[in-house]
Amino acid sequence: MKLAVVGGGSTYTPELIDGFARMCATLPITELVLIDPDAHRLELVGGLARRIFARQAHPGRITTTADLDAGVDGADAVLLQLRVGGQAAREQDETWPLECGCVGQETTGAGGLAKALRTVPVVLDIAERVRRASPDAWIIDFTNPVGIVTRALLAAGHKAVGLCNVAIGLQRKFAKLLDVRPADVHLEHVGLNHLTWETGVRIGGPDGADVLPKLLAEHGETVAADLRLPRALLDRLGVIPSYYLRYFYAHDEVVAELRTKPSRAAEVAAMEKRLLEMYADPALDEKPELLAKRGGAFYSEAAVDLAAALLGGGGSPVQVVNTLNRGTLPFLPDDAVVEVQARVGREGAAPLPVAPLDPLYAGLIANVTAYEDLALRAALHGGRERVFAALLAHPLIGQYAYADRLTDRLIAHNREHLTWA
Amino acid sequence: MKLAVVGGGSTYTPELIDGFARMCATLPITELVLIDPDAHRLELVGGLARRIFARQAHPGRITTTADLDAGVDGADAVLLQLRVGGQAAREQDETWPLECGCVGQETTGAGGLAKALRTVPVVLDIAERVRRASPDAWIIDFTNPVGIVTRALLAAGHKAVGLCNVAIGLQRKFAKLLDVRPADVHLEHVGLNHLTWETGVRIGGPDGADVLPKLLAEHGETVAADLRLPRALLDRLGVIPSYYLRYFYAHDEVVAELRTKPSRAAEVAAMEKRLLEMYADPALDEKPELLAKRGGAFYSEAAVDLAAALLGGGGSPVQVVNTLNRGTLPFLPDDAVVEVQARVGREGAAPLPVAPLDPLYAGLIANVTAYEDLALRAALHGGRERVFAALLAHPLIGQYAYADRLTDRLIAHNREHLTWA
Amino acid sequence: MKLAVVGGGSTYTPELIDGFARMCATLPITELVLIDPDAHRLELVGGLARRIFARQAHPGRITTTADLDAGVDGADAVLLQLRVGGQAAREQDETWPLECGCVGQETTGAGGLAKALRTVPVVLDIAERVRRASPDAWIIDFTNPVGIVTRALLAAGHKAVGLCNVAIGLQRKFAKLLDVRPADVHLEHVGLNHLTWETGVRIGGPDGADVLPKLLAEHGETVAADLRLPRALLDRLGVIPSYYLRYFYAHDEVVAELRTKPSRAAEVAAMEKRLLEMYADPALDEKPELLAKRGGAFYSEAAVDLAAALLGGGGSPVQVVNTLNRGTLPFLPDDAVVEVQARVGREGAAPLPVAPLDPLYAGLIANVTAYEDLALRAALHGGRERVFAALLAHPLIGQYAYADRLTDRLIAHNREHLTWA
Amino acid sequence: MKLAVVGGGSTYTPELIDGFARMCATLPITELVLIDPDAHRLELVGGLARRIFARQAHPGRITTTADLDAGVDGADAVLLQLRVGGQAAREQDETWPLECGCVGQETTGAGGLAKALRTVPVVLDIAERVRRASPDAWIIDFTNPVGIVTRALLAAGHKAVGLCNVAIGLQRKFAKLLDVRPADVHLEHVGLNHLTWETGVRIGGPDGADVLPKLLAEHGETVAADLRLPRALLDRLGVIPSYYLRYFYAHDEVVAELRTKPSRAAEVAAMEKRLLEMYADPALDEKPELLAKRGGAFYSEAAVDLAAALLGGGGSPVQVVNTLNRGTLPFLPDDAVVEVQARVGREGAAPLPVAPLDPLYAGLIANVTAYEDLALRAALHGGRERVFAALLAHPLIGQYAYADRLTDRLIAHNREHLTWA
Repeated sequence: MKLAVVGGGSTYTPELIDGFARMCATLPITELVLIDPDAHRLELVGGLARRIFARQAHPGRITTTADLDAGVDGADAVLLQLRVGGQAAREQDETWPLECGCVGQETTGAGGLAKALRTVPVVLDIAERVRRASPDAWIIDFTNPVGIVTRALLAAGHKAVGLCNVAIGLQRKFAKLLDVRPADVHLEHVGLNHLTWETGVRIGGPDGADVLPKLLAEHGETVAADLRLPRALLDRLGVIPSYYLRYFYAHDEVVAELRTKPSRAAEVAAMEKRLLEMYADPALDEKPELLAKRGGAFYSEAAVDLAAALLGGGGSPVQVVNTLNRGTLPFLPDDAVVEVQARVGREGAAPLPVAPLDPLYAGLIANVTAYEDLALRAALHGGRERVFAALLAHPLIGQYAYADRLTDRLIAHNREHLTWA
Repeated sequence: MKLAVVGGGSTYTPELIDGFARMCATLPITELVLIDPDAHRLELVGGLARRIFARQAHPGRITTTADLDAGVDGADAVLLQLRVGGQAAREQDETWPLECGCVGQETTGAGGLAKALRTVPVVLDIAERVRRASPDAWIIDFTNPVGIVTRALLAAGHKAVGLCNVAIGLQRKFAKLLDVRPADVHLEHVGLNHLTWETGVRIGGPDGADVLPKLLAEHGETVAADLRLPRALLDRLGVIPSYYLRYFYAHDEVVAELRTKPSRAAEVAAMEKRLLEMYADPALDEKPELLAKRGGAFYSEAAVDLAAALLGGGGSPVQVVNTLNRGTLPFLPDDAVVEVQARVGREGAAPLPVAPLDPLYAGLIANVTAYEDLALRAALHGGRERVFAALLAHPLIGQYAYADRLTDRLIAHNREHLTWA
Repeated sequence: MKLAVVGGGSTYTPELIDGFARMCATLPITELVLIDPDAHRLELVGGLARRIFARQAHPGRITTTADLDAGVDGADAVLLQLRVGGQAAREQDETWPLECGCVGQETTGAGGLAKALRTVPVVLDIAERVRRASPDAWIIDFTNPVGIVTRALLAAGHKAVGLCNVAIGLQRKFAKLLDVRPADVHLEHVGLNHLTWETGVRIGGPDGADVLPKLLAEHGETVAADLRLPRALLDRLGVIPSYYLRYFYAHDEVVAELRTKPSRAAEVAAMEKRLLEMYADPALDEKPELLAKRGGAFYSEAAVDLAAALLGGGGSPVQVVNTLNRGTLPFLPDDAVVEVQARVGREGAAPLPVAPLDPLYAGLIANVTAYEDLALRAALHGGRERVFAALLAHPLIGQYAYADRLTDRLIAHNREHLTWA
Repeated sequence: MKLAVVGGGSTYTPELIDGFARMCATLPITELVLIDPDAHRLELVGGLARRIFARQAHPGRITTTADLDAGVDGADAVLLQLRVGGQAAREQDETWPLECGCVGQETTGAGGLAKALRTVPVVLDIAERVRRASPDAWIIDFTNPVGIVTRALLAAGHKAVGLCNVAIGLQRKFAKLLDVRPADVHLEHVGLNHLTWETGVRIGGPDGADVLPKLLAEHGETVAADLRLPRALLDRLGVIPSYYLRYFYAHDEVVAELRTKPSRAAEVAAMEKRLLEMYADPALDEKPELLAKRGGAFYSEAAVDLAAALLGGGGSPVQVVNTLNRGTLPFLPDDAVVEVQARVGREGAAPLPVAPLDPLYAGLIANVTAYEDLALRAALHGGRERVFAALLAHPLIGQYAYADRLTDRLIAHNREHLTWA
């Protein structure tokens, strides 16, 4: 079994490698290729990756290459975890939207659109090359904005599934709070990538007892603190929104914060610098603790689980993934990409049925799906007017004058990544 | 043919009477009852109404009463045009939402919800009494927020159609600009009450040539100025949003304006005072010019046309009304109320098919429909939490802290109208 | 020695009585008159006051009256602690300025101006009657906004000193943190009422060692938390701003808070209700703990100390008071009222010299003094334009459109208290 | 008589040359040196300058050089009109402050501070070299922010006067409206550079009749439109604020505008490109009309008048200049720089007395002067904390969290111009 990781030079990679090593039985990789144009990073990360495998006696071989076509050749699955423009582009995404009083963030709002525009063409090019080199390979997309990127991949006919660590993170968190095994926590997880709510928390499986009320009653404070949302909001909704809903439910509060502190990108850039220094240490043969603060917790577990299921070697039969709606949320188009529990196997992902959603969530989901549709059009076909339309459609923007100016600013800050600009 | 007007003491009424008089052939009313609890207004308005009929030699009889049950007894159609709480309540609707930086307006946002909460129970009670007194009567609702009120009426099984003057106003405006007869202008009018776009302007009927591009090219400046939206927005969208979209597309600009000038309610209250003084003049036997500034232009034409069609006596076969969606906009629930072109006759209104809508409009419509659903629940069942949910769902609010505070403020300012508060 | 307390029915009063009882040696009152138009409150508060004196064996007599002239007759000192319009007016002061995105607060900004306009004429009338009844009496003003009210009193030639509990509160707080006796903490306290900075904290007296750097280094976190300001701000300034500077240094943060929670007035009103219930209990003969949350901590100590000094019976020779500038801050007019350390005795208060102030503070003080000058003119002479000028001059407003609308709102909400409106 | 113009390659220069040519009798220049590091601009501008002189038969010689020391050698007066960082830096000044909701402008607020920090060290270095090369030369500073730059020059003991075209522009405007000769219009012009009010408009001289009320009554609409301020504001104040007061009186409105349109810097850059193309045309021998839109109207008249007076060759005896306060505004430090009418001659500028100012203006002037003091300290001595203090002191910022973030942003965007950063 051969796996390729595009963006393998990411500082995230040791998290992934650690998972591959620990879960060798679930996903018996024989060859792992780390692909990255950044030779320096690749060397540092590749070295640590081999030491982690060695320490844990994983029999698989790890290779590194800057040559995408060679790297993905013959792969059974390809993980995408790239960041077009790096942390510098992210820093921009987090900054210029503030000029209009709009949230600056790399997966939603104007910054999220910028990232989508930079990323979609690159990912589609990679996917096309994967298809040529290895027609049966599954593409697992961890690259943000996962919803739009996955929609782009599926619309182009690729064998792709979108992956996010929000659901697995909540599952692990709740398991701990409830003192049960993670695998026993079945989330009723519904929405779009980074726009989800847990509407039920069932023990043992989809038909188990719903302990969400109990969870909120006993651990509401802890859960709310993690999400940085008021506990009262959770109690009043009776469901648990994802952390990213904070950009909606507390938009102005977030903007006020962003105006008054350094960017997350700057924090992450500093952390990455420190991580790469650590990775260079030949004595290091496990993922350092600092990596936990980098984000992406449980990403490796989720990725192993998903790859194993897709490749038929095991993995949980039901997982939270990003895949085609096809009627799951009846108020959305069939070709929208939703993030829900799905049955996953060699044939791909098939969403489990979802109970009717309260309008309080359905309305926002429909609105953001419309934005994602327009965002994808802008990413695929370019043009100032398509960018403008996507921004005007976004519920966190929605105003003409802001959409107009933000269009200018987005283009000015991303010109080198936009072939049409 | 007997018509009853609930809220007949409104200063709007002479506009309506003038239309009845001019269009006597279309709608041959024999008895018109003006119903209002305010005896003083009723006397002034009723007097002028009779003088207008007399001057124009209308044979119909006009009576006035404060007794609703008696007034609607035997009516063929009942027009609802009431304002629970009067201009004083409206002034509140336009003010306290500003405390949270949200638009203060009587048909959308937090102010619109307040009006819905005050109005729906009153209208449902009236409709119930109409049903008892005159089971076959059609109820024509001109009372705002028309979308939610009509939804309430239809959900309760009433024979009701919602009416707004936005579409007829645009039709007349465009006819003038294009130098054609109003009846020849067929609007592709789509959305929800006060959230509509003209996506086509056809000459001669639904299959006529679409002159919207020409209209925008030649008269874009005039149209935009009327809507108080930038002309560039119209050109870029290629469709014409209703005036009320300004609360969305230019929200912060509107808030800045509201913060810096007296309320519209105060203006209208002053105008009403002046109008009532005029109405008291026994020499006045036509609607005064000032009434045109009161809003509601062409309301009488629309009302006559609709009543005539519903009662089978004529009227345009296709009209813009508020009625059940039933698949017209496939992304909305069947029981949502949409504002579209519909075939209108004795059996009621049946929407014409609507071409697929751009996500730029569909997303917002879906979101506001979700709000309207929650608003109706709050209006029907009351309770602080239902109010909160509706406010949180509204795209112009959407934030937890604002929804929370606005809930308090809404209740504090409307306590006397909310039985549950 | 006879003291009169105007506004004696305030729920604050037991705090004051408790101080009089404890510090009987410093201020040997023989007669204490509580004056209030609210007979019910006066009865409850007066009863508790007598029980507190009795329990502590204070020999003085306590009487109550609604008759101001009789009450102040022959008084040696008159304390003013009234609230024109009560908590209801305060609730308004805290609310309507938010409509323009401006802080709503009862001593600064537009709300503070409203309170000044309501209060100054009432206080001047009282002072005039005190002068007639008891020409030599000292007037001690604790009524907010203390700076403007004191300026009004002094400009009218009254024997008045303004009193605030901010300085004494900090002195007690610092003494505790530094583990020294309060009397040994000499603050270099400078500015205007509710716009002050501690630029030095000296031990033993004006010439003692300045421990402010040490205080910040060791207890900066505690001090900052009390002020609800960031510790980093204190460290960077190297001085300690008063709690009220938060309305300036964190204006938008405060507005965001106010938009998202109930008013302070509502909290206080609820507390007052509870306090009055407690006061009605004939078994209660000491100030209840709840009173500490009412605000006004150490007010009684400050008042006793000031009255004792003014009446020549003791008291600290140097105290923080509000009095005429007369060159103390050379960049302000002589007739401005400043809040600084002053030598206090039978002749009144004479400010100690103040070291040159950093422009960072001087600029703001000059600006707010200009506002206070205009505010006093508006309070004395009335008129829409004077209100407008004061609002435009206030650094927390300063914009034409807001000043214009807030003028309307201030007048609308305070019409019954403004003879000229 | 030799004059040197530092920044002589500016697109402004032909305006200046045109004035020198027209007013040859007042200021009989024999040698004019244009000094600029940009050889290309210098060639284009120098060529046009010579053609303008030739066309108007001016006998003076025009030379160009990049060598400052040589250029100013032996000069009788040196004009400073430079822009450190060019339009690119200006574009930044106008943009990043918006991230915190603060006005982005190159002479006030955070952008103005950035310009001061970039400019003051460069100007002081130039002035020092002028002093060495030509100890008796007058330095006329037209470089913004003129107030702070002039204060820096005077504090360093240079023979300097600050010049702005606001006053002369208003004088010419009013003269036209009143149909009198410009020289007959004496403005009572008071405040700081870009923070001034005309408190009187006298005909014939300082003792002439004040026609300001008449001017407002008859031409208020025109004047207000020019200033982009509401006419009602002018009427209510009874004085005429400068255009730059709009950043204060309509701050949020300006921010809303800036958020919704391209920067002024971008406009000017486009205009400069076009102007330079015109200047390259060897047939052009007068200033093109487009130059009027570049700003700086009447700058040449003002500069000629000032230079003539300083060099003793004529010029108006009383002119509006930026010079030391020395008690003119008694509430400001003596070493503040004010912008007022002054008697100008070989000895420099001596302010005329100014009538007592209304607190409405004095308070703001005092506050901004304090900011300018701190801004100058930051410009002279550098350091993050000095930048922070100046930002916190600015009345358009004033909040801790914004001052903190804007400090970061200012430094990040101007690092190459700040030796200490």
